Amino acid sequence: MNTLGQPRFASAHSHAMGDDITIPEHIETGREPGLRFELAGPRRKLFFDPTQTRAGIVTCGGLCPGLNNVIRSLFLELHYGYGVAEVLGFRGGYGGLDPKNGVEPVVILPELVDCIHRQGGTILGSSRGPVDVGRAVENLIARKVNILFTIGGDGTQRGANDIYQEADRRGHLLSVIGVPKTIDNDVGFVSRTFGFFSAIEEAARVLGCAHTEASSVQGGIGLVKLMGRHAGFITAGAVVASQDVNFALIPEVPFALAPFLAALRERMLTKSHAVIAVAEGAGQELLQADASERDSSGNVKLRDIGPFLRNKIEEFFKSERIPIVMRYFDPSYQVRSRPANCEDALLCDLFARHAVHAAMAGKTGVVIGFLHERFIHVPIALLTTHTKRLDPAGGWWRSVLAATGQPEQFA
Amino acid sequence: MNTLGQPRFASAHSHAMGDDITIPEHIETGREPGLRFELAGPRRKLFFDPTQTRAGIVTCGGLCPGLNNVIRSLFLELHYGYGVAEVLGFRGGYGGLDPKNGVEPVVILPELVDCIHRQGGTILGSSRGPVDVGRAVENLIARKVNILFTIGGDGTQRGANDIYQEADRRGHLLSVIGVPKTIDNDVGFVSRTFGFFSAIEEAARVLGCAHTEASSVQGGIGLVKLMGRHAGFITAGAVVASQDVNFALIPEVPFALAPFLAALRERMLTKSHAVIAVAEGAGQELLQADASERDSSGNVKLRDIGPFLRNKIEEFFKSERIPIVMRYFDPSYQVRSRPANCEDALLCDLFARHAVHAAMAGKTGVVIGFLHERFIHVPIALLTTHTKRLDPAGGWWRSVLAATGQPEQFA
Amino acid sequence: MNTLGQPRFASAHSHAMGDDITIPEHIETGREPGLRFELAGPRRKLFFDPTQTRAGIVTCGGLCPGLNNVIRSLFLELHYGYGVAEVLGFRGGYGGLDPKNGVEPVVILPELVDCIHRQGGTILGSSRGPVDVGRAVENLIARKVNILFTIGGDGTQRGANDIYQEADRRGHLLSVIGVPKTIDNDVGFVSRTFGFFSAIEEAARVLGCAHTEASSVQGGIGLVKLMGRHAGFITAGAVVASQDVNFALIPEVPFALAPFLAALRERMLTKSHAVIAVAEGAGQELLQADASERDSSGNVKLRDIGPFLRNKIEEFFKSERIPIVMRYFDPSYQVRSRPANCEDALLCDLFARHAVHAAMAGKTGVVIGFLHERFIHVPIALLTTHTKRLDPAGGWWRSVLAATGQPEQFA
Amino acid sequence: MNTLGQPRFASAHSHAMGDDITIPEHIETGREPGLRFELAGPRRKLFFDPTQTRAGIVTCGGLCPGLNNVIRSLFLELHYGYGVAEVLGFRGGYGGLDPKNGVEPVVILPELVDCIHRQGGTILGSSRGPVDVGRAVENLIARKVNILFTIGGDGTQRGANDIYQEADRRGHLLSVIGVPKTIDNDVGFVSRTFGFFSAIEEAARVLGCAHTEASSVQGGIGLVKLMGRHAGFITAGAVVASQDVNFALIPEVPFALAPFLAALRERMLTKSHAVIAVAEGAGQELLQADASERDSSGNVKLRDIGPFLRNKIEEFFKSERIPIVMRYFDPSYQVRSRPANCEDALLCDLFARHAVHAAMAGKTGVVIGFLHERFIHVPIALLTTHTKRLDPAGGWWRSVLAATGQPEQFA
Repeated sequence: MNTLGQPRFASAHSHAMGDDITIPEHIETGREPGLRFELAGPRRKLFFDPTQTRAGIVTCGGLCPGLNNVIRSLFLELHYGYGVAEVLGFRGGYGGLDPKNGVEPVVILPELVDCIHRQGGTILGSSRGPVDVGRAVENLIARKVNILFTIGGDGTQRGANDIYQEADRRGHLLSVIGVPKTIDNDVGFVSRTFGFFSAIEEAARVLGCAHTEASSVQGGIGLVKLMGRHAGFITAGAVVASQDVNFALIPEVPFALAPFLAALRERMLTKSHAVIAVAEGAGQELLQADASERDSSGNVKLRDIGPFLRNKIEEFFKSERIPIVMRYFDPSYQVRSRPANCEDALLCDLFARHAVHAAMAGKTGVVIGFLHERFIHVPIALLTTHTKRLDPAGGWWRSVLAATGQPEQFA
Repeated sequence: MNTLGQPRFASAHSHAMGDDITIPEHIETGREPGLRFELAGPRRKLFFDPTQTRAGIVTCGGLCPGLNNVIRSLFLELHYGYGVAEVLGFRGGYGGLDPKNGVEPVVILPELVDCIHRQGGTILGSSRGPVDVGRAVENLIARKVNILFTIGGDGTQRGANDIYQEADRRGHLLSVIGVPKTIDNDVGFVSRTFGFFSAIEEAARVLGCAHTEASSVQGGIGLVKLMGRHAGFITAGAVVASQDVNFALIPEVPFALAPFLAALRERMLTKSHAVIAVAEGAGQELLQADASERDSSGNVKLRDIGPFLRNKIEEFFKSERIPIVMRYFDPSYQVRSRPANCEDALLCDLFARHAVHAAMAGKTGVVIGFLHERFIHVPIALLTTHTKRLDPAGGWWRSVLAATGQPEQFA
Repeated sequence: MNTLGQPRFASAHSHAMGDDITIPEHIETGREPGLRFELAGPRRKLFFDPTQTRAGIVTCGGLCPGLNNVIRSLFLELHYGYGVAEVLGFRGGYGGLDPKNGVEPVVILPELVDCIHRQGGTILGSSRGPVDVGRAVENLIARKVNILFTIGGDGTQRGANDIYQEADRRGHLLSVIGVPKTIDNDVGFVSRTFGFFSAIEEAARVLGCAHTEASSVQGGIGLVKLMGRHAGFITAGAVVASQDVNFALIPEVPFALAPFLAALRERMLTKSHAVIAVAEGAGQELLQADASERDSSGNVKLRDIGPFLRNKIEEFFKSERIPIVMRYFDPSYQVRSRPANCEDALLCDLFARHAVHAAMAGKTGVVIGFLHERFIHVPIALLTTHTKRLDPAGGWWRSVLAATGQPEQFA
Repeated sequence: MNTLGQPRFASAHSHAMGDDITIPEHIETGREPGLRFELAGPRRKLFFDPTQTRAGIVTCGGLCPGLNNVIRSLFLELHYGYGVAEVLGFRGGYGGLDPKNGVEPVVILPELVDCIHRQGGTILGSSRGPVDVGRAVENLIARKVNILFTIGGDGTQRGANDIYQEADRRGHLLSVIGVPKTIDNDVGFVSRTFGFFSAIEEAARVLGCAHTEASSVQGGIGLVKLMGRHAGFITAGAVVASQDVNFALIPEVPFALAPFLAALRERMLTKSHAVIAVAEGAGQELLQADASERDSSGNVKLRDIGPFLRNKIEEFFKSERIPIVMRYFDPSYQVRSRPANCEDALLCDLFARHAVHAAMAGKTGVVIGFLHERFIHVPIALLTTHTKRLDPAGGWWRSVLAATGQPEQFA
């Protein structure tokens, strides 16, 4: 595990632990255990003297329910749990680390964060795009920041890794700890990311609306595009939770148009209405996405499956002379800008506090993972080699197939 | 008031009343009272013998929260309150009245409606478009239907009027009673239509999301298109309830692009984010809508102000070299397909029961209105001559101006 | 109408009006119009010079959804709408007016009220009990407060009247404007008080829980005590909205135990479960309440009908040897401490802004009423002579009887 | 693992698996792995021929969010997933298995369960108390029931074990599969039971109300009693999710009154309000509960810590002459009778379908567990020897201490 050195200061935390407890990546009989991960938690010895320590927090990328909860609990644990000297909030994403952008960080105080967990978004602001690592580290050194919490997705965490390595090169003792943020739930070694189930809840609501619309008219088709660039977790979760969907399309299960449209036709002729949930990353092979197009975070740009499918369906039924009433839903921003639900609130608190424990113990280049129901330390580098996808042979997809009644594949 | 004749049967309803109580259209000092309307309510004498009476229900046009509540309470009052012989639900809107379409009506029974008030949509189905009045009335005669409840907007009620007049011509004693349905709240003599505040609640939620999105990035603009073809009530209500909006645009207050964009620019330069709520019918003068385009219900087709405004804003800030992040929201179907909230549930129950009282007393060609906090009988013909619009000199618009801080007009 | 004198300052408000428009108490044909009330709204001339004016706000009595919305909109209209010099929030109810209690008022600023409308309760705090009028007025004079907004029930408004009269005696030009607060909706000339429908929404939720509990066991009885000391509006509204209740008991409709228990027995034998909603003020005649017991606000102390009824039911079924499972619900604090729903949010805004318009025009000893869908000025003195009760011959109670299937009276 | 014999029939399920994959109880480095559990899931070979198989479902004990979801998914998987001949719903808990009670089971059909997952409670009804095992098994034999799903807590599952053993004695091939139901989340080998987070959500809402009440008056104390007979999971979860509580008391952390009251006094003197969450099973040592008192399910009867604490607090502050305003909340039935939230809906579906897979493969005397994020088969007998309690040295309790600021123990 990446660490800044030998911890020396005694922790006041009761029930503190050592670094020696680990859990394996795989736990099934006869399977190689694979990687091993340190359990996260308060350590008996701290690397940093809290009274001499300054921490920074930055939120990057798209919104996700629970960002403010994470900021709040990071601060509370740093301030009350360890008595850290100062906590800075860098504003507007990674851009806020670069003094060239002229955005002064905010000094976080208890009053500032008192109620922020009840609102969506991030009080620090966010943005996409990378950071000039050199200027960022210089700035952290100048501001005497020893700990940096990076709340963001895998792009953000790759940037975090660069920052920690640059600090190391310059001899600045900087603990960089990532809190993985992905509403799509597609980060490796994190079985459940914060905000994911809040998103499912909202998505399921919209699926319910689509069902109402579709079933209230003759020939009604409700088509709902949900988040999920590379992973269908939100779609699968919302489909099983709502039990209102007849066709679910996700990136992990490629589909061909003709058999899908044939099945939809069959459904319309027998039941006269249908609800379709499609993850934004589904059917990309149909769209022949040009992998060279990337957005400012470096993500592959997706063509929009929603309108594509809508058009294909409308053309198909027109050619079949079957009248339909199409209702298209694209609720993406509503799904991600809501506050965290209760369970995500709890998860955010635990992620944040474990991140602080890791930092104070001198870990660096690490994100907090959650595996086999335990919080763990995951070297950032592993995130880029291990992604998480929905298993088409697993229980969730089986439940999707059962809830929709759709065949295993449209192929 | 239109009536089928002298009521003859005694009502079992306690606290029944006569036809003699009316209220005036206007009640302010020195103002002419204008029209007078009969108070609705159970009558001492019934025109129809309940044991010999068959009633029909039809829902037309777009969805609206509370449709199922109205269906349910109509049935319950007919069945338990009066002991009517049979209640038929015609399916798929006015099309269901025409036997040519081959959609058999459903006989409504208590079990069918037991839980329907908890779900959005309409269990009877709906559609747009007119009915062949001749075939519809023939069908009603053949099925011995004496009472028809038409739940729909002004187009629907005009059709209802035609049906009642055609029945009259054929000597069939048919009571046609309309329950006004307009999510936009723009029907005359109905100060509040059912579903309207459920829609506001959902719209306000989305405005909150837009605020979160806009305020979490540098240069964020949240643009939300809300329902309201000719009236800005939903937009105004949601803006005042949410207190999250900086610019509200409604059909009743025309606006010019240049001063609006100038004010938006000012806001972005000082606060760096903004939320805009625009009713779908706002700014039609800018879109030079061709009044000759009409949809299948005969409504003037609107060009889409949402994408229009989005483009104009993006072009403007591009030309001004001010970077913005545009978040566009179009939640229309979600707003109208939700179940009724508590207050609309109560309102639906009262509208429906008053409609049944009117029918049993032999009223016809009448919709149930709600004026000065009282349910009244309104001749359908009046709906076409009296529409309701938001008063730019009244309290609601004053509250919108106060909540947004926008000038009285962008002119 | 009580007024401090001739208004002299020009208002900047567009669409301002004069004092000459009034509406009558009664509007039905042939009925005496009764009292006449001035329409509320911005006046063309102001009595107070805003730049020289100090306003105070105080919240009294029990909590009610929307208190913070009213505080916020009062401040916003005073501050932005009129440019008043300073707004003070007196804390802890009327006690905060008395310097003897040593609670310094807070100077309200925009930041303080920014988000308060999203939370229940009152940021100013509240309390029951009267105020020492002499010391309160002295304090207001010393602090140069010319306008006092009293948010509270009829007890509070009686106190408000005393304050205005005492100020008058001392020659201090003090506008005292009341915003009527009663979760029970039982104040005269206010057809709907703020918070009332938020309360109904919560009450209906609990009735739904009671239905679930009662119907999931053999012999289940769900008994829910709801707010409503003297008026059954909350109970009636929640019963009709939820459609889950079999027996509703309210103060306005006295009942005898024996016929009620007989009807309940009948229900249990045929359906094996039942839900009962009882307003806290129902059946007081059974409890032989001693009218001389009063709480610190001067309200008659009620004995608790909930446990009384629970015991009577349990004894009865024991004696009848019919096994029951009793589930008792008392959700009172949850009903009143929630935030305002959307519609109450809108209502609060309008009540508050009309109160400010009245004050600036120099009205005093006045509460803002809401009659025939219009905001009006009501002399406080009228509140003590006119109370509002649910009409057992009206539409709401008819809907309750229809929803429950209970007889008109248990007598 | 308990099994009825060698499976012989081919399964149509794709991605079916064998019995050979297991996971260990403990996975931390250097710790003995302890017990091993079979992974649950569809098996390649079935023990029962679906076309010849009849299944029964019974729900026992108190309500819990998600019961109807489990019933529905059990049926759907049996009916559509395997094509089982018939599914019977035994009514009113274990009592419904005994023909002596004269409650005929219902034949479950798709229409019956279509919408039940949207409502709380159980459509089958429930009850407490044991079953006459002999008569129950006789009845199952007579009705040719080969599979029985028992949805209930540990008492229920002990009964399930007796049933399976009695069937075994009589030579009737009966698969008894338990779905663990405990709103308190206190069953061993189930890291999260269904309904638990729905309960937390509702509990957190009430804690928010208590906070509003307490903080709106001088000296306000909000005391909330939450579910949790032997385990503080609901209390801990709701406290961390709401962040509104100052003192949390749970069964796993005994407390002494004097230091608790001293800390509360300190809080009231500095902040003048406080919120206390107490699990119903907390402080039993203070109540000197007599362990010989048991309810009809055989659970130890608890004295009521809520009113006990309320009295002690009131007496204490009276003796200290510090005025307080006590607000007591007991929301228990509301917490358990609500419908499942989205995440519990998903969990219910997965528990139910895994239960069906286990039954069809011929497992018996087994409950479905959930350990290290995997569904497993747990022999019922283990439930009685392994209970689950909140770990006062673990992350949840650390988060509670951080959220409340309370000391580790009041001792």
